[in-house]
Amino acid sequence: MNWHASVLTLFPEMFPGPLGHSLAGKALRESRWALDAIDIRGFATDRHRSVDDTPCGGGAGMVLRPDVVDAAVGAALAAGPDRPAVVLTPRGTPLDQSTVRRLAEGAGVVVLCGRFEGIDQRVIEARNLQEISIGDYVLSGGEPAAMVLLDACVRLLPGVMGAADSAVEESFSGGLLEYPHYTRPAEWNGRAVPPVLLSGHHAEIARWRRAEAERITRERRPDLWARLHPNAAEAGAMDGRPAAA
Amino acid sequence: MNWHASVLTLFPEMFPGPLGHSLAGKALRESRWALDAIDIRGFATDRHRSVDDTPCGGGAGMVLRPDVVDAAVGAALAAGPDRPAVVLTPRGTPLDQSTVRRLAEGAGVVVLCGRFEGIDQRVIEARNLQEISIGDYVLSGGEPAAMVLLDACVRLLPGVMGAADSAVEESFSGGLLEYPHYTRPAEWNGRAVPPVLLSGHHAEIARWRRAEAERITRERRPDLWARLHPNAAEAGAMDGRPAAA
Repeated sequence: MNWHASVLTLFPEMFPGPLGHSLAGKALRESRWALDAIDIRGFATDRHRSVDDTPCGGGAGMVLRPDVVDAAVGAALAAGPDRPAVVLTPRGTPLDQSTVRRLAEGAGVVVLCGRFEGIDQRVIEARNLQEISIGDYVLSGGEPAAMVLLDACVRLLPGVMGAADSAVEESFSGGLLEYPHYTRPAEWNGRAVPPVLLSGHHAEIARWRRAEAERITRERRPDLWARLHPNAAEAGAMDGRPAAA
Repeated sequence: MNWHASVLTLFPEMFPGPLGHSLAGKALRESRWALDAIDIRGFATDRHRSVDDTPCGGGAGMVLRPDVVDAAVGAALAAGPDRPAVVLTPRGTPLDQSTVRRLAEGAGVVVLCGRFEGIDQRVIEARNLQEISIGDYVLSGGEPAAMVLLDACVRLLPGVMGAADSAVEESFSGGLLEYPHYTRPAEWNGRAVPPVLLSGHHAEIARWRRAEAERITRERRPDLWARLHPNAAEAGAMDGRPAAA
């Protein structure tokens, strides 16, 4: 069985979209994964085919109905029951590479895309939907987020990446941001490649890259750095802030 | 002048993709924004039209050449010079809603999409490219990330969102995750809407929603909660960890 993604959306015509090109598209054509885009509106039962209603308690926006979402999730799971069902929302747990790996190692995924409106909380609980956020920003809907999630998963499936790319992948596993990259020409526009990279000394090159990765991580992502070096972070907090007392 | 996005990519055929549908697509047809997808390969100068080369210092993967990227960025900026140029990379500063707002308030954006390979650091420095990350996961390329960035910006442009959606937008401005949503029916599948939401008491509904938003933020995103309540976070740290000393 191939890795099987089902996307529940009000805009099935958005798919495969970018996932039909490049690495993911080639893998799709090679049947390394399969993609269904399922129209949530197909599960509406009234004659207006309505999928949402006003929020209980008042307020702006609309809320996707629990019965319609439940029927759509049920239909997707019937076509592949051993898959986690996730909903993409800014309220969710932040997506990270370990979640991507876990999803890629499974049978596939069912992804529910809300639009700007919310989703009735009861169907999230009844179906045990995992709420996932791709970042702290607001999209017009879950569809671009679903494309990000699926792209990240598909590149990890067996046979999708070449050996060279797989090796590059390893460079992310240390929890540091990547060191800077350089290629030819050795001098461009008055800017030279750092001489150590042209020295041929493999140990020195590895040392330089490690130091640069650490410097960039410290400067740009004190949160990641603190996770790697909890003691250093505490010392930093002592320098900058009064002690909690 | 409309808000003008130029995307530099090796896969221009991916665009507009999902940005041609729904809210962003309607706004594109109404000329509330404009989108160019520019093929980086068009700026290659050798007869093989090569855009990348092996990394200085060795290692897996390929690196986009500084001269080719520089020419592509230059061409995009010539068509709209008052725009920031960004590159989407896991090494970048995390994207958040305040960055989205700032970009949406400007003249537009030039977005450089790397593929899995890196980009020569010298052109990042020479062009002062802002490195932005949409999250801590690895994509096959910058294109799905560019779609996320543009979708987030376009929905904030004047006239794109309806008044009701704009009001919902405000609910994110407090830095809390959203409270749970409910709609009809009042009882579904043995699950009832919380009675307070059907009570008609506006002040109690507002209090319940605020408490739920705080609870969910505390449980799911201690990082966000700590930013809102730095003293509480310090107290929490004192409870759970030995004092740094």
